Amino acid sequence: MVGRRVWAIAEGYIPGRSFSDQRELISHEAACILNATETPASIEITVYSTDRGPAGPYRIRIDPQRTRHLRFNDLSLSDPEPIPRDPPYSSVIRSDVPVIVQHTRLDSRDPHIALLSTIAFPAET
Amino acid sequence: MVGRRVWAIAEGYIPGRSFSDQRELISHEAACILNATETPASIEITVYSTDRGPAGPYRIRIDPQRTRHLRFNDLSLSDPEPIPRDPPYSSVIRSDVPVIVQHTRLDSRDPHIALLSTIAFPAET
Amino acid sequence: MVGRRVWAIAEGYIPGRSFSDQRELISHEAACILNATETPASIEITVYSTDRGPAGPYRIRIDPQRTRHLRFNDLSLSDPEPIPRDPPYSSVIRSDVPVIVQHTRLDSRDPHIALLSTIAFPAET
Amino acid sequence: MVGRRVWAIAEGYIPGRSFSDQRELISHEAACILNATETPASIEITVYSTDRGPAGPYRIRIDPQRTRHLRFNDLSLSDPEPIPRDPPYSSVIRSDVPVIVQHTRLDSRDPHIALLSTIAFPAET
Repeated sequence: MVGRRVWAIAEGYIPGRSFSDQRELISHEAACILNATETPASIEITVYSTDRGPAGPYRIRIDPQRTRHLRFNDLSLSDPEPIPRDPPYSSVIRSDVPVIVQHTRLDSRDPHIALLSTIAFPAET
Repeated sequence: MVGRRVWAIAEGYIPGRSFSDQRELISHEAACILNATETPASIEITVYSTDRGPAGPYRIRIDPQRTRHLRFNDLSLSDPEPIPRDPPYSSVIRSDVPVIVQHTRLDSRDPHIALLSTIAFPAET
Repeated sequence: MVGRRVWAIAEGYIPGRSFSDQRELISHEAACILNATETPASIEITVYSTDRGPAGPYRIRIDPQRTRHLRFNDLSLSDPEPIPRDPPYSSVIRSDVPVIVQHTRLDSRDPHIALLSTIAFPAET
Repeated sequence: MVGRRVWAIAEGYIPGRSFSDQRELISHEAACILNATETPASIEITVYSTDRGPAGPYRIRIDPQRTRHLRFNDLSLSDPEPIPRDPPYSSVIRSDVPVIVQHTRLDSRDPHIALLSTIAFPAET
């Protein structure tokens, strides 16, 4: 089975500005999560801040053999509380089946966008 | 032997636009695969989507002691189906000999390009 | 427990120029450190240079269940010596509890910023 | 001891153009290598191509407790053969003591530079 059940992303920063309001060009961060198993994945995301206790867990579900590029920006829609723009944060992602997680940011404060990406940290357990 | 037989890339996004039609500047994603062994590598790539079952496997071969910077854009040329531009995807890469995989995107929607890269996730098996 | 006690970042470069003097847009490097444990983390950072012995350790503390996006730029404020702009450096980060470390640079020599990020190297011990 | 003795970087591409001829802004790729041990590191780099056998090994030495941000561009100066600009390549880095390796590219074909970076792949041996 390809993946791990616990992942962490130490970086986290959603720029408060965007030059465009097109969804694909709004400043955002994503946790790209692949569930390559034959089983639905129930996932809980806990978000850590600099100066107060963790928020969450935010819950999502990913169908078997599907991927989800989850925007941290969108965690505000139906979950405990939105992730504020500009303050730094981190996240821990727990799944009941093995998944793979990659972290990506698109920064469009300037019209000439910048990107970053990294594999998340795969925890041992 | 340097490498692993199974790798996963959770990110995947080929921008639908490019400011240039020069091959080196077209928006693209690559799986850079190094076969440092003395044996040819037979590789199968499975591509996962958000809303339908996986596509593939796409099959490629890499000669011994050679590298291949495979563009996901080019998987459309001779394989089961093209990877659509704009929708998110993920991939799992299986090789019969150990290889090393790195994931890179060049985004040239704007003439001032943006880049991202990360080591892929090396699975245990 | 999610994390490791020793991490290394082989890249290190703080550009000597910035197009802006806004804190969020000054050229900088950060070690984003998540302490997801229930215990305060005492952290020591050693900085390696090309042509002289290591500097540090710089000491920081991170409260339980908090994150800190530590700018290498700011290590000059109250610690043994500032990290010079422009020369390359590397760092080793040691914590008394498991943490997760990610490395990020924002390069704003040009008004159209560039970003890079990667998970740091998680040492075995 | 922090590090590994064998690392691989599957990506490799030195853009053939640069908008500037200042060393810090020339398009380049670097293997940032940290030797945090108390022992000098003797390092051999093998470079893999798409269509011919490997070049090298290129040999470098890193003093104890020092870092070296080695530009692949500079391997041409005193070593078996230069790395050509534009064709893709990969590399394997072998050291006699544990080191840490990170891969970074600065692409300055356009005056508004782009960056990428990732931890290299730490081999098991």
